[in-house]
Amino acid sequence: MGFLEFFKDFFLGFWDYETPKIMVVKNRRLGVIYRSVQLLVITYFIWYVFISQKAYQETEERPESSVYTEMRGVAILGDSVRDTTEYAKPSEGGDVISTILRREVTHNQRQGTCAEHFSIPNANCTSDADCVPGELDFDSHGQRTGHCVPYYNYTFKTCEIKTWCPIEEAAAEIEPPLEEAINFTVFIKNAIHFPKFKVLRVNIKPRKPKKLLRCHYHPETNPYCPVFRLGYIADQAREKFSELCKTGGVIGAFINWNCDFDVDPSECVPTYSFRRLDLRKTLTSSGYHYRFAKYYYKDGVEYRSLIKAFGIRLDVIVHGHAGKFSLIPTIINAVTAMTSVGICSIICDWIMLTFIDKHEVYSGKKFDDVTKNPSPPVVTEITLTSYGSTHSDLSDGVPL
Amino acid sequence: MGFLEFFKDFFLGFWDYETPKIMVVKNRRLGVIYRSVQLLVITYFIWYVFISQKAYQETEERPESSVYTEMRGVAILGDSVRDTTEYAKPSEGGDVISTILRREVTHNQRQGTCAEHFSIPNANCTSDADCVPGELDFDSHGQRTGHCVPYYNYTFKTCEIKTWCPIEEAAAEIEPPLEEAINFTVFIKNAIHFPKFKVLRVNIKPRKPKKLLRCHYHPETNPYCPVFRLGYIADQAREKFSELCKTGGVIGAFINWNCDFDVDPSECVPTYSFRRLDLRKTLTSSGYHYRFAKYYYKDGVEYRSLIKAFGIRLDVIVHGHAGKFSLIPTIINAVTAMTSVGICSIICDWIMLTFIDKHEVYSGKKFDDVTKNPSPPVVTEITLTSYGSTHSDLSDGVPL
Amino acid sequence: MGFLEFFKDFFLGFWDYETPKIMVVKNRRLGVIYRSVQLLVITYFIWYVFISQKAYQETEERPESSVYTEMRGVAILGDSVRDTTEYAKPSEGGDVISTILRREVTHNQRQGTCAEHFSIPNANCTSDADCVPGELDFDSHGQRTGHCVPYYNYTFKTCEIKTWCPIEEAAAEIEPPLEEAINFTVFIKNAIHFPKFKVLRVNIKPRKPKKLLRCHYHPETNPYCPVFRLGYIADQAREKFSELCKTGGVIGAFINWNCDFDVDPSECVPTYSFRRLDLRKTLTSSGYHYRFAKYYYKDGVEYRSLIKAFGIRLDVIVHGHAGKFSLIPTIINAVTAMTSVGICSIICDWIMLTFIDKHEVYSGKKFDDVTKNPSPPVVTEITLTSYGSTHSDLSDGVPL
Repeated sequence: MGFLEFFKDFFLGFWDYETPKIMVVKNRRLGVIYRSVQLLVITYFIWYVFISQKAYQETEERPESSVYTEMRGVAILGDSVRDTTEYAKPSEGGDVISTILRREVTHNQRQGTCAEHFSIPNANCTSDADCVPGELDFDSHGQRTGHCVPYYNYTFKTCEIKTWCPIEEAAAEIEPPLEEAINFTVFIKNAIHFPKFKVLRVNIKPRKPKKLLRCHYHPETNPYCPVFRLGYIADQAREKFSELCKTGGVIGAFINWNCDFDVDPSECVPTYSFRRLDLRKTLTSSGYHYRFAKYYYKDGVEYRSLIKAFGIRLDVIVHGHAGKFSLIPTIINAVTAMTSVGICSIICDWIMLTFIDKHEVYSGKKFDDVTKNPSPPVVTEITLTSYGSTHSDLSDGVPL
Repeated sequence: MGFLEFFKDFFLGFWDYETPKIMVVKNRRLGVIYRSVQLLVITYFIWYVFISQKAYQETEERPESSVYTEMRGVAILGDSVRDTTEYAKPSEGGDVISTILRREVTHNQRQGTCAEHFSIPNANCTSDADCVPGELDFDSHGQRTGHCVPYYNYTFKTCEIKTWCPIEEAAAEIEPPLEEAINFTVFIKNAIHFPKFKVLRVNIKPRKPKKLLRCHYHPETNPYCPVFRLGYIADQAREKFSELCKTGGVIGAFINWNCDFDVDPSECVPTYSFRRLDLRKTLTSSGYHYRFAKYYYKDGVEYRSLIKAFGIRLDVIVHGHAGKFSLIPTIINAVTAMTSVGICSIICDWIMLTFIDKHEVYSGKKFDDVTKNPSPPVVTEITLTSYGSTHSDLSDGVPL
Repeated sequence: MGFLEFFKDFFLGFWDYETPKIMVVKNRRLGVIYRSVQLLVITYFIWYVFISQKAYQETEERPESSVYTEMRGVAILGDSVRDTTEYAKPSEGGDVISTILRREVTHNQRQGTCAEHFSIPNANCTSDADCVPGELDFDSHGQRTGHCVPYYNYTFKTCEIKTWCPIEEAAAEIEPPLEEAINFTVFIKNAIHFPKFKVLRVNIKPRKPKKLLRCHYHPETNPYCPVFRLGYIADQAREKFSELCKTGGVIGAFINWNCDFDVDPSECVPTYSFRRLDLRKTLTSSGYHYRFAKYYYKDGVEYRSLIKAFGIRLDVIVHGHAGKFSLIPTIINAVTAMTSVGICSIICDWIMLTFIDKHEVYSGKKFDDVTKNPSPPVVTEITLTSYGSTHSDLSDGVPL
């Protein structure tokens, strides 16, 4: 056979259509099993993959998100007034905002020497000999001077240290909690942008700003008013507000956007949920507090007011998920579905060849052995030739 | 048949190779359809999956990112000088940085009593009888004392309240916007690390620091100089800088790393884009502002300067995507491609058995019915036996 | 054929079971290849996909995370004491915390006029004529007044400017680094929540708070004590602490949760790693510093202390991954595995039809040509009819 002929054969053969030969088994029981498995697979794909998981959609998981928070409310604590500037930190209004609900203030601290706290190891003393000058323990408040001095207004003595004086433990003025803060509100403005779908959504609707800041969130009646009372937040997080006032706590404010852009984008409204993020339980180290200072100068000397602040820290966490019909995932999933239907054959073949009676017959029909001495084909060839089929046809085809 | 014989049969059968029987249909029209569908599927896989989507690569989506921001520029506003320390907040230079472009400053506030703002409900009064002592409305600035006092320098009266005095609305000094800030620059240093590929990339090139801080970003001529003028940022975000000066606004600075580590990693240069993140439109509540205070003591009394700051908040958001050749995804996708070609058969079979004439013949050839009375096999067996094929061979094989 | 009959045929046919006909090739070499490829594919799926990648699990990648950081330690620098409030910023204890290790303080700055720094272009002068009044260069510290004044305590002159005086370069007091900070500790509390699995995990164990704050982290002996010495952190990040003291640096603290909820959740303990995030190398602009000011009033004039702070910024980055057995992914991956085994056929068919001798015979057996003149079927039909098979049976089936 020359090269040209081979090429011609190949070219002609290239346009042939090849399809597997199928054996049809007229067995009602097997058929029912087969169709049942098929039905199961198809149901799974249509219901779970396409309807429940919306596999026909292109999705975007991580939208660009911008959060702006603003606290509102004013309260009286003793003789002084607390407004937003006093209790909301940091002031910039980002996605983490904390409210100070209780303070322990140490006024008029200045660098100097004073008595160490009595709980510090080796701090109790009777004479200067008990205090090593220059010692600086990790847990201590400062460096020892080597003197033994009376502990503030008490009669016992502790080692003198160089530090910010007086020390917090001795001089802190513990303020009562700001229980009225239960009515403070936090306004959480959140804009998200899905770059793939070019959709921008905001969790508010255009309206008069005054009206916006006076409303309160309600999932049904007021979904576009992201203004939350601290009391509402504590409730949703299943925490007691009075407890939070004492120890503080970190609460996650979850904004969840679940958008289907195959329907009207205006139905893409976020849901809000709140959950306490730090551990509470019986843990004594639970809660949230931090220290900061206000500095000032008096006669050229730097003073500070040290404030230990307990409060609620709100961490705004935005989750977003959007989907829109797209051809590529639809095709891919449809193809996967069709391919998976083929799995039915594997199961049914196994049943057919194992359990159903007459499986020997089915097996014999399904499997065609080809040994090294393929005599039957030769025989068949002869038989068939005598009935006038063309030789060329048979040499390529399956002999009968 | 004994157990040993069965085991021997199974063992021998285990090494047999099984392959589906194929029917070759010599029909040009069907062949063309078949090959066309195949071509379509293969083209899709090669072009879309492998070339466009780079499915042969292992990818990493969320690199570890570190952002350091620094603002530069100095401007004169009236008699005073504004440098970075004055207008950039927070000072730590993280991924959120705000520039103060306009301020409304209420100087010398101290805790005391003064007149409530007239817009507060029931704040207007003619005598003390109109003011309920102890009342603390949510929208009010403080707690009512029960007195009716003149409203600052005006002739009308409002209820007196205990608060930080004077109130912002009455005493705030509104400064003009810092229009010169259009030339301020922000330097955004960003280092990313892909842990899977162990690649660290930075958006700057080693050079003299002075030179670095004086350059300006340009996508083509200066891609390694992440120093942006505020005016450039406003332009890119399609905002008017003068407008932003008045109301403030939140702008997202997107750094996009799209790296292909199959080519030289030095080609992995980020692109920058800017987009306004808060809603603008006709919304009156749009813009960005926050309040903070500077505290000081005078004669033992705490004073504060309350500053309402309008400005641009830059949220630096880093996206990263890296890919590198890997064997596993290549194999998986190649296998999927091959499997998907099988889909062609489903389509073509359906065409063959439905539309092409002589489909009855093709159908007859393709499908082999096996009923409960499988007489033909028995017959064939006899026929063939006479032609000398071994019996054992046929009992396992398909009878001809 | 009437409609009813067609419908009946279709209905009966619907319950038939269809399975491809298989050719069994009794060739040991081919069988070995076939089984080897199968073994390879099955091994890959069992070992890599199921055991190594745990494909039988439903996974969750991005847990909700809450980070609380707190620094501890006190040090003496010269005559003054540094406690947490002084060196830890921001004070709120979020996921980014910086320690000030070295300061350059410019005391008593106030708005006024003073000499420009000599490095600024055109700042050097001999007479007022050299200084253009009102000029405000981008790199300069302020606006020129038009006077030429002596440069602080030096004999040469520079242009006078309106700015915060004195300028930092001339008056900054450079403090020595706080080397003792190597023993400061940072406590990183991290709570994560996997919403899908409803599992909350914290990186500490309930215990006495004092004991918790005094322990130190060790991967084996103390995995539940997330308290790290700054020296340990520098070591882990392969940095010299003394170097960091001078230039500062950004270090990422990576908390990695890798949880398998099929085993006891208590085994879900995070690992910690530290890596420097900003570029170091020979880059002169490397390191981390920022400027902030403390403001105060003296005789009604606003003063500030400008502080250029060098230090370590810790960016706490939380990675989480959790898996739990789930039926759906198990089925999907098992199906994919079974389907992939089919790939073996493609490879072996190609080998069989190309390399193995007698491939012509195998090819002939495998492929059954159907031409436009399908004479053989007719012939066979006759032959078989004489042996008593029903006609109706054969017209639907594959003729022998």
